[in-house]
Amino acid sequence: MPPLRSGRCWFTGLARVRHAMLYAGLRGASSFLGCSRDPPSVAGELRGELDRFGGVSVKLDALDRLDTVAFQRALQAAIQKWRSEGRVAVWLHIPIFQSRFIAPAASLGFCFHHAESDSSTLTLWLGKGPSRLPGYATHQVGVAGAVFDENTKKILVVQDRNKLKNMWKFPGGLSEPGEDIGDTAVREVFEETGIKSEFMSLLSIRQQHTNPGAFGKSDMYIICRLKPRSFIINFCQHECLRCEWMDLSDLVKSENTTPITSRVARLLLYGYKEGFDKIDLTMEELPAVYTGLSYKLYHKELPDNYKTVTGMD
Amino acid sequence: MPPLRSGRCWFTGLARVRHAMLYAGLRGASSFLGCSRDPPSVAGELRGELDRFGGVSVKLDALDRLDTVAFQRALQAAIQKWRSEGRVAVWLHIPIFQSRFIAPAASLGFCFHHAESDSSTLTLWLGKGPSRLPGYATHQVGVAGAVFDENTKKILVVQDRNKLKNMWKFPGGLSEPGEDIGDTAVREVFEETGIKSEFMSLLSIRQQHTNPGAFGKSDMYIICRLKPRSFIINFCQHECLRCEWMDLSDLVKSENTTPITSRVARLLLYGYKEGFDKIDLTMEELPAVYTGLSYKLYHKELPDNYKTVTGMD
Repeated sequence: MPPLRSGRCWFTGLARVRHAMLYAGLRGASSFLGCSRDPPSVAGELRGELDRFGGVSVKLDALDRLDTVAFQRALQAAIQKWRSEGRVAVWLHIPIFQSRFIAPAASLGFCFHHAESDSSTLTLWLGKGPSRLPGYATHQVGVAGAVFDENTKKILVVQDRNKLKNMWKFPGGLSEPGEDIGDTAVREVFEETGIKSEFMSLLSIRQQHTNPGAFGKSDMYIICRLKPRSFIINFCQHECLRCEWMDLSDLVKSENTTPITSRVARLLLYGYKEGFDKIDLTMEELPAVYTGLSYKLYHKELPDNYKTVTGMD
Repeated sequence: MPPLRSGRCWFTGLARVRHAMLYAGLRGASSFLGCSRDPPSVAGELRGELDRFGGVSVKLDALDRLDTVAFQRALQAAIQKWRSEGRVAVWLHIPIFQSRFIAPAASLGFCFHHAESDSSTLTLWLGKGPSRLPGYATHQVGVAGAVFDENTKKILVVQDRNKLKNMWKFPGGLSEPGEDIGDTAVREVFEETGIKSEFMSLLSIRQQHTNPGAFGKSDMYIICRLKPRSFIINFCQHECLRCEWMDLSDLVKSENTTPITSRVARLLLYGYKEGFDKIDLTMEELPAVYTGLSYKLYHKELPDNYKTVTGMD
């Protein structure tokens, strides 16, 4: 029952790092700093910031002229000190141009937690047992748009240019960082087909692991129901081989499609004939309790009387 | 309409790197190798592997004794060659103990694409316009379990130990790499409460961005309906302050709960009174077309007659 990784409580709290500072004096280590070509003033100490989960966070910005040998010795001494104080983990934040400090840290047991753009973060677990530090993002999110025109009973489908088998599918692609599911669907449909559309609902979620196209990470693939706002196709020649408004019944019957496209076509047929409320997850924006942010929540539409009900009866 | 980043086609294809090899001869650069303390045999060339999207992938394993100055000059010459050949991107894969090559690469314009455990990957975009390279994973996935006992009309709820406001919520936590949604829910419920349970359905999906507890990435939070398989609570003292089987009607009425917990409690009440098919997204495992993998697909249950229907009528 790991209190660090398992609970979401721990995660949310990461943002509320206490500003108590730890100065790992490293008097023992400073004697090694004669190796440094041009010792900076900060060389005699490795400054760490404590978090409320027993970890220490170190930013290497100020060490930019420190020698790697001196750094490794200072870090080793600091680790001993933090360990003796009962700290459970060390986080090292390293700007890309200070990456010469990565290998010395790795030789003391640090490994990459993540890296992006111009910096990397390494971690060392000091606690008992296996590391309980939280991991980094595990999923990419792709979104496709099933654009269905109720008036003509036609659905927008494409064939990818680069696939070995040219099967009919819904236009879609990966969400950008910070992009909402519905916005990805509308953007991708427009980029691939030239069709403008409006988000109606979320229809299905697929989870797939060790995805080769996701750098070995997992893939969450979501299909949305969209309503067309324009009808003249102008498809992207780079991405698509074909793009059509196809009769929904033809897509349902087609064998030249993926299982997930066929399944969602049948869901749409069910929705069209018996009411889209049978298949839709509708969206609502709600305030987040702890962070002051908002979020978007998707679930089956809740009848009004259940929104206000106060008991079982 | 970017063909690289926008289309999922490109992504899936990443795995099918052609094994045509590119040897960037670097005869011009090899004259700089006198700087190397002990030039390895590979020093005269920087070997890159072409992918079918116009990119070049370089693994630095073989360069472990190369001088950083020689490396930077060799890389600079190789980039000129690849650019003249019309390559659109370079991927550099660097083992953690070779991280001294990162800063020299950064000075030529490379930046981190991602890093994990004992290696990092850097990229340089050579194509026209802004980079169209696909990003890395953008979301962490958290899963909570709403364990509802139809016989007693009670639901399993906890209060987190570390929150400022101790609100009732469903037990849950972050999914492990490669873990299915339902498995995360069952595992987290057991770890936090000691209750064994079985996955029934997916009830809701929440998307939230720039999450401080997700290292600035996005958060996908999914609530599942679970059926209890045991009833004696033995909750984790590290994570939870309280844990109870609460009357569902009391949770619906409670003000000491989060908006999402209250909403899902009302959904469960709706499902209990009018049939869980009104609120459930059921799960099915299907084969992936291109990769030989399988995936799990969640959507509203499709009536049998729509699974076999072949047209609109």
